[in-house]
Amino acid sequence: MTNAAPQFPLPGFFLSFEGSEGCGKSTQIRLLKARLEAGGCSVEVLREPGGTQVGEEIRHLLQHAKAGEGMTPEAELLLFAASRAQIVREKIRPLLEEGAFVILDRFLDSTTVYQGMARGLPLESVRAINAFATGGTLPELTLVLDMDPATAHQRIHATGRELDRMESQPLAFFEKVRQGYRQLAEAEPQRLTLVDADRPPETIHAEIWTLIQARRHAV
Amino acid sequence: MTNAAPQFPLPGFFLSFEGSEGCGKSTQIRLLKARLEAGGCSVEVLREPGGTQVGEEIRHLLQHAKAGEGMTPEAELLLFAASRAQIVREKIRPLLEEGAFVILDRFLDSTTVYQGMARGLPLESVRAINAFATGGTLPELTLVLDMDPATAHQRIHATGRELDRMESQPLAFFEKVRQGYRQLAEAEPQRLTLVDADRPPETIHAEIWTLIQARRHAV
Repeated sequence: MTNAAPQFPLPGFFLSFEGSEGCGKSTQIRLLKARLEAGGCSVEVLREPGGTQVGEEIRHLLQHAKAGEGMTPEAELLLFAASRAQIVREKIRPLLEEGAFVILDRFLDSTTVYQGMARGLPLESVRAINAFATGGTLPELTLVLDMDPATAHQRIHATGRELDRMESQPLAFFEKVRQGYRQLAEAEPQRLTLVDADRPPETIHAEIWTLIQARRHAV
Repeated sequence: MTNAAPQFPLPGFFLSFEGSEGCGKSTQIRLLKARLEAGGCSVEVLREPGGTQVGEEIRHLLQHAKAGEGMTPEAELLLFAASRAQIVREKIRPLLEEGAFVILDRFLDSTTVYQGMARGLPLESVRAINAFATGGTLPELTLVLDMDPATAHQRIHATGRELDRMESQPLAFFEKVRQGYRQLAEAEPQRLTLVDADRPPETIHAEIWTLIQARRHAV
């Protein structure tokens, strides 16, 4: 566990998926993982908070405190960042060094979009905290599954199951999240790529596969 | 619990104590608290992490993970910051609004000195994280109990009890901590004041009392 990110690209590939609730991230991650593994690739899918002992305890704390409703948004963001700092050094870097294909189901951009852009915590601070937590270990490619907020909202409500805190936000919040991701993609086009998520899963998967092949050959 | 610090000074008084292990902070806090309370002042002594439900859980996590030795220094710093963000908004601001005299046994400067200056985490990040966690709620006065590191080191070892992680650091670490505090006091003389801690407790207490009276009357 070193403090600084290695100076040269690691042998593995680091990919993150982003997007609002209902955009189909889980399906795409499943399809991609299966295809990569079928090709003999070692794949690890990770999700924050969690993935490490420290992260699991932070997850427990976040869920527990949420029930008590007493946690400030600042403390919540810093707990997510602590879990991120841990998973980067304990899991992601060693996996990339071993040559694994590492897929994160949400990573630093979720914090920027949800806590910074949509919730209004100061963006400069959010960026500084993300930079400290990741220590420069950023995804080589981040796929933002982009979808009309009304469609995503409808999809979630159509499931009939009990919705979590984010899923039960009003449509206006989904709009803010989408605009946030679009702004990020415009600011960092070399890392973030928007993928139209309002298409059949297999069509989206095919595009994702092409994007990844292009990026891996370019490295 | 508001996100931003109030724009005007709150009715209470916010004081923090800093200094290396063995400098006599606990004794001075006890003497000061007793004198303030004898004068009819409402006093609250707080220590991080802890002081809130979230903070207590973070304290447990830090102690628990320490035993496992797997926690990265970055995650540790962010957990301290999360506890700080919570105690500022849940406890310190409301207490100051009620007019209490709030004494912190270590606050943001400990993070800057121990994790930043002595442990070598990037200072710019440490500052940004501290600023986010405190949201601008800083002590009106910070008393740094300054002492020759060899004397402090000796004092601790003379107690004969089992030493904690910080206390059992080598003398060179105590030197770094002292220099760190001195640098901070030079950079922020309006907030941090060095107090010579190598004198009888009552003499130190008398100087501290004078410093606080001067500052309270100046506000």
